[in-house]
Amino acid sequence: MNPQTDKVAIIGYDMTPFGDLYDLGISEISNLALTGALKKTGLEREDLDGLYIGNAGAGQFLGQEHLGALISTGCGLDCQSLRIEASGASGAVAMRIAAHGILTGYLDKVAVLGVEKMTSFSSARDTQYALSTAMDTIWEASMGGTLTANFALMAKSHMREYGTTSEQMAQVAVKNHQNSKLNPRAQFRNSITQAHVLKSKMVADPIHLLDGCAASDGGAVIIMCSPEVAESYDSEPVYIRASKQGHSPLALHKREHLNRITCTKKAADGGYKQLGITPKDISFAEVHDVFTIAEIMAIEALGLVEQGKGGMATEDGVTALDGEIPINTSGGLKARGYPVGASGIAQTIEIMEQFKGLAKDRQIKNIEWGLTQSMGGSGGTSVISFFSR
Amino acid sequence: MNPQTDKVAIIGYDMTPFGDLYDLGISEISNLALTGALKKTGLEREDLDGLYIGNAGAGQFLGQEHLGALISTGCGLDCQSLRIEASGASGAVAMRIAAHGILTGYLDKVAVLGVEKMTSFSSARDTQYALSTAMDTIWEASMGGTLTANFALMAKSHMREYGTTSEQMAQVAVKNHQNSKLNPRAQFRNSITQAHVLKSKMVADPIHLLDGCAASDGGAVIIMCSPEVAESYDSEPVYIRASKQGHSPLALHKREHLNRITCTKKAADGGYKQLGITPKDISFAEVHDVFTIAEIMAIEALGLVEQGKGGMATEDGVTALDGEIPINTSGGLKARGYPVGASGIAQTIEIMEQFKGLAKDRQIKNIEWGLTQSMGGSGGTSVISFFSR
Repeated sequence: MNPQTDKVAIIGYDMTPFGDLYDLGISEISNLALTGALKKTGLEREDLDGLYIGNAGAGQFLGQEHLGALISTGCGLDCQSLRIEASGASGAVAMRIAAHGILTGYLDKVAVLGVEKMTSFSSARDTQYALSTAMDTIWEASMGGTLTANFALMAKSHMREYGTTSEQMAQVAVKNHQNSKLNPRAQFRNSITQAHVLKSKMVADPIHLLDGCAASDGGAVIIMCSPEVAESYDSEPVYIRASKQGHSPLALHKREHLNRITCTKKAADGGYKQLGITPKDISFAEVHDVFTIAEIMAIEALGLVEQGKGGMATEDGVTALDGEIPINTSGGLKARGYPVGASGIAQTIEIMEQFKGLAKDRQIKNIEWGLTQSMGGSGGTSVISFFSR
Repeated sequence: MNPQTDKVAIIGYDMTPFGDLYDLGISEISNLALTGALKKTGLEREDLDGLYIGNAGAGQFLGQEHLGALISTGCGLDCQSLRIEASGASGAVAMRIAAHGILTGYLDKVAVLGVEKMTSFSSARDTQYALSTAMDTIWEASMGGTLTANFALMAKSHMREYGTTSEQMAQVAVKNHQNSKLNPRAQFRNSITQAHVLKSKMVADPIHLLDGCAASDGGAVIIMCSPEVAESYDSEPVYIRASKQGHSPLALHKREHLNRITCTKKAADGGYKQLGITPKDISFAEVHDVFTIAEIMAIEALGLVEQGKGGMATEDGVTALDGEIPINTSGGLKARGYPVGASGIAQTIEIMEQFKGLAKDRQIKNIEWGLTQSMGGSGGTSVISFFSR
């Protein structure tokens, strides 16, 4: 195989609405997204020879593990099916690993599903516990640590070292809501202002309620195959050209930097090197804005803005829809919605819509390379995927 | 790629003791197995470019998900790392998917880790709940169903249709303990008799306590690479030649047969076809004897004995160490021990020891093909892997 020239095509995609899908079980959510994606390609269920599932927390949220068998047979499939769990990066890892199956020739057409159902709990405390299993349980969660508290520590450190302000963080949320207003797939399509964010409840100083995402249900599917197979289904497929994964220690105190997402930088640098491109070649990106500070740290780690300038770049409109490097044109996790395991695939679907010119009022122009950055927990895992025509 | 000739080499392996590893956390168990496996190859940690982890229940048992980042950094690795969850087949799926990474050329040397820590709970009820998340939660577990009850239904159906007896089921346990006495790696190295099994507590008629496995802690690691890379490390590597995966609906009432493991048959038949061999070519096998009836159904589904004759074949000694087709020479899940996610890798390690002539008193002769059958839940997922020199 040749990592410089290998390509995997995406020939179909769809996602359910993101939000509170009270009436639907996890198999039904999955089936809804799968049915939509198959319809776009004209494929039937029996044409698929693999279902790769990214899911972070069905065990925690639903008491249901072993999703490979459950969802594949629940969706009427009779092919190999497996579940990847990598917290918020689950969907992105599933996509990356499915690409290996295509590149070996062992898989012809694969559906990659990201799915999560998070709204079953009646208390925020239960939800908080379920989410905290993505942290270092012994060092952090069992001591009362939460994901929000971890990001608050990172934000404080970023503010201290780089002068990042609460207003700049709030602007990430404002921008992503501006974008989501233009995205019919988004969970939250309302405008918000900096004042809304700054006046919302302080959850863990300096993180306000509106600096973070909401728990959500939803599923997203892409159909992948080789470029040769793709020819029969899509005259202009979009290709995954590289996908890299990096890690940092889960527990914050074991990391060298509190205000840098090292796992993202490692993975991104590996991808740029493999493809022979630089951050300047990236036209737009979907990044993991689980909290507003996370987007600021992500665009720095990806090299899209200078280290420490992420807040200022956001304030200056560099990452806005009409800026130099549009970030989260979909609305991001913040406003498009964040069913955890579905996230990496939902990001990819925005990449598809932009490449295919289907993004309507949020369409950006002159696209050469698109990039997704998915992250797990408070930055233990990061997957960076590169897309081109 | 050519599925007929593709090979992935295993050049090193090791496992921790299986049992109650009270003093060790999940990263420490993993590191112990990894260190042993690296030592056998002469490789250093920085030589690895992937860690593929099979783990079924750390979220349930330890409140710890996101193991990719946790364990890789905890083991001092700086490579991509991911976790597969497929209940009892988790380790086997991880191995299968890691093989894809090798065959694409994207991975050079990969460690595949199966690991579980199950003894943290103080009550059997908690353990039972954690295990039940591998069932269909809505249709079975939430109605009070347990894995034992599911296998009891299968056993009853097998007895009714084929005349299988409790004595024959007990003989599976007797045989596997006979084998485990000869295996220094086994958790239980005591002899048991049919009378012991039949007089042990009835858990779910007709399944006695000694028809089942014990909850256990443990880790197992294999190091995989391409045949070309293997040449530098092992003059006689063992190869994975094919690995197939099949599914049945999780919920028993949705299956066509109660007394057949359809997912195993589908996967096995696919493997035989790919390799151009038949069940007669298999020299020995490690199968998923989570309950004694499961071994009987497995050897039938694999075609190693005739459908319905699994109990009688066991009674007749066909599957004993000196029989026509030795099954579970390691002692199996029953006696070698069953830390759930580690199981597929522990099975592979027995295959390695037999191929390499290191199985001492339990060594079998004239080995051409070895096979592992791993299963998830009460038969929702099955992975069949084929090994040769």
